[in-house]
Amino acid sequence: MARPNSRDRELRERAAAVIPGGMYGHQSVGLLPDDYPQFFERGEGAHIWDADGTRYLDFMCAYGPNLFGYGHPEIDAAYVRQLGLGDTLTGPTALMVELAEAMTAMVAHADWAIFCKNGTDATTMALTTARAHTRRRTVVRANGAYHGAAPWCVPRPAGTIDSDRAHQILCDYNDVASLAAAVAEAGEDLAAIFAAPFKHDAFIDQADPDPAYARRARERCHHTGALLVVDDVRAGFRLARDCSWSRIGVQPDLSTWGKCIANGHPISALLGSDKARKAAGSIYVTGSFWYQAAPMAAALATLRLIRESDYLERITALGERLRTGLGERASAAGFALRQTGPGVMPLFLFEGDPDLRKGFCFSSEMLARGVYLHPWHNMFLCAAMTEADIAGALDTPEGAFEALTRQIRDLARGEKLAVLSAGAR
Amino acid sequence: MARPNSRDRELRERAAAVIPGGMYGHQSVGLLPDDYPQFFERGEGAHIWDADGTRYLDFMCAYGPNLFGYGHPEIDAAYVRQLGLGDTLTGPTALMVELAEAMTAMVAHADWAIFCKNGTDATTMALTTARAHTRRRTVVRANGAYHGAAPWCVPRPAGTIDSDRAHQILCDYNDVASLAAAVAEAGEDLAAIFAAPFKHDAFIDQADPDPAYARRARERCHHTGALLVVDDVRAGFRLARDCSWSRIGVQPDLSTWGKCIANGHPISALLGSDKARKAAGSIYVTGSFWYQAAPMAAALATLRLIRESDYLERITALGERLRTGLGERASAAGFALRQTGPGVMPLFLFEGDPDLRKGFCFSSEMLARGVYLHPWHNMFLCAAMTEADIAGALDTPEGAFEALTRQIRDLARGEKLAVLSAGAR
Repeated sequence: MARPNSRDRELRERAAAVIPGGMYGHQSVGLLPDDYPQFFERGEGAHIWDADGTRYLDFMCAYGPNLFGYGHPEIDAAYVRQLGLGDTLTGPTALMVELAEAMTAMVAHADWAIFCKNGTDATTMALTTARAHTRRRTVVRANGAYHGAAPWCVPRPAGTIDSDRAHQILCDYNDVASLAAAVAEAGEDLAAIFAAPFKHDAFIDQADPDPAYARRARERCHHTGALLVVDDVRAGFRLARDCSWSRIGVQPDLSTWGKCIANGHPISALLGSDKARKAAGSIYVTGSFWYQAAPMAAALATLRLIRESDYLERITALGERLRTGLGERASAAGFALRQTGPGVMPLFLFEGDPDLRKGFCFSSEMLARGVYLHPWHNMFLCAAMTEADIAGALDTPEGAFEALTRQIRDLARGEKLAVLSAGAR
Repeated sequence: MARPNSRDRELRERAAAVIPGGMYGHQSVGLLPDDYPQFFERGEGAHIWDADGTRYLDFMCAYGPNLFGYGHPEIDAAYVRQLGLGDTLTGPTALMVELAEAMTAMVAHADWAIFCKNGTDATTMALTTARAHTRRRTVVRANGAYHGAAPWCVPRPAGTIDSDRAHQILCDYNDVASLAAAVAEAGEDLAAIFAAPFKHDAFIDQADPDPAYARRARERCHHTGALLVVDDVRAGFRLARDCSWSRIGVQPDLSTWGKCIANGHPISALLGSDKARKAAGSIYVTGSFWYQAAPMAAALATLRLIRESDYLERITALGERLRTGLGERASAAGFALRQTGPGVMPLFLFEGDPDLRKGFCFSSEMLARGVYLHPWHNMFLCAAMTEADIAGALDTPEGAFEALTRQIRDLARGEKLAVLSAGAR
């Protein structure tokens, strides 16, 4: 099932000349099967078209930002309308106030908002806000959890120095004893506990948050005066119309948001409770495009859809249907899948596949059949997906599992294994 | 000359409830005269309208991004057209390659490009690239120079800790002996020398780069193997169609860009020479919106105008005319101004005005007459400004100087003096 890829190959060659390594960051396909396209030309609803014109049902959703569908008419119209009035100006517009009001009205713990561009901007501001609030230094966070790509938290340390990561103690997510030990080690210097809303590390099984872990983090912060930070950049508004830990009854002091809050338009946010307001107002943070009005208009339109539509119930049901159907088809084909994490942000790994050779082969076969999956990063569902899309996606695995079965004895050892294993923290 | 400001006041009150301090960052008017509006509603060409509908000729240009005029038809059409095809997708589009080719074709020292969102993203990547390339730690940069708002370089340290700024040595811009001493102090650990293209610190006179200083920085980097970084985020493409130091014949290894490269659409960049390519490819850097296609389309349209129009010659001539005219009008009114830096990024301070009381009064009077100036931050000209705009702006100071003269004996001591002086580093 060879797809055309001449345009992608040509672009990769040109990219190799003018971009270090040809591509960087989370959208590089360097650690994906060789036939994954690097370059795209179009997105609409739940689908993407690669540079050679092949269409896929996209289970990555731009790694999160696409919540209501690519090119959503209402959201993009709000963007374009505001662009015609003014976007990056010499000051903000009223939309900044309206958006802060809208976010704090939706997120129970939040009394204020600061808007920025990258998820990393928000997590870094959470760090400095906590340090300013407590006048302490030490941060406790979980091994392997991704909180951004700044020197203090970047998963690969090349180019950073030890002092960039000073005063951080790592614990194991969902391990209450490990958390307690880290907090004890921090002692009177504890400034913050960071937590992902669930364990969504790459390369390994995901895990829902253990309420006991979340409550212990909350209790330890309350007891020590440190701030509890829930990093909802990746998961925010896919699990709840509130901070994700609201589902387990735990309210943080700070939460970080990004990705889908404007359905792909560039804006992220730090939200906080009154307790941290003064500290948040004391740190110096800014960026050339942080006061852009058009992404704020798009965010307001997105939040309206979040509040007023049944998107959450729909994508939750679609995620369950996908999980159940995929499990059934795997079983029928004689394969066992470990499907972990929330159904709307699914990850599946093959049992007995330490170098991901089965996962790579299966993903390639699904890709060849028009379904874009990811073999080791959590995927995302979006509200533009229909019952028919999921049903169609579930018609696809049978052939892909058959192809995998045919090839399984000849599959090359996963050449990227060493890199992937080094990446799994 | 009271302007309506009821909408601005209402928005400030609402903002105070949901945004820490009511506003943050470089667009906060907290350190500007009290009558400066905080909120705007529209921009077109060289003009902005505040939230109460008052129009100003805008000499801040969104603090830089506005190079060809707010709402430039050709640039914004390129953005909107690409938005209709695809913006934030599961991978980049061909535009990323085209933009890297366009930037490296224009900037003489550059062989490759990495695109990001904030200027701070670009300067932080320059830091980590230099550290990865040299496997050393120490960075030399100038006292008071702004290189972004990350913990390693933020001008106000609240919330940061000492280790965030470890392994940095400060020197004095344009002081060759000071630079040499800093480099000597760094010894074998020198990773990079950072330089602004000219001294554009806030609150104090600007200064053109001393070629001897630039050449010494270049020579010391060559000698030690460290990388020379020119931070062109603020000034890029307003002084040259190349890196700003090309004007004095000094080529850096890395340069950082942002602000105006897409005329206000959100994109910034790190450019580098082949020497640093491998190191740049080794660092992990990414962001949710870094691969957005629409800002890249806008950047390509902007670069085309930069290459093919006489914008640079026009804004340079307008800047000289503004400087000469303003000096003449000040003299005629009996005031002495110190006008410093390039004419296209002007700053003027009143002689004998240590607490800026004259500057604040004059700026307020100009604002009341429809001209938006900044009393202590460099301003920006844009290519949407006309001869008539500048002539009109030069008709304005006579009345403003008269008003200043009338009030001068009664001017309150600059209440913000303490803060401003603390800010001047």
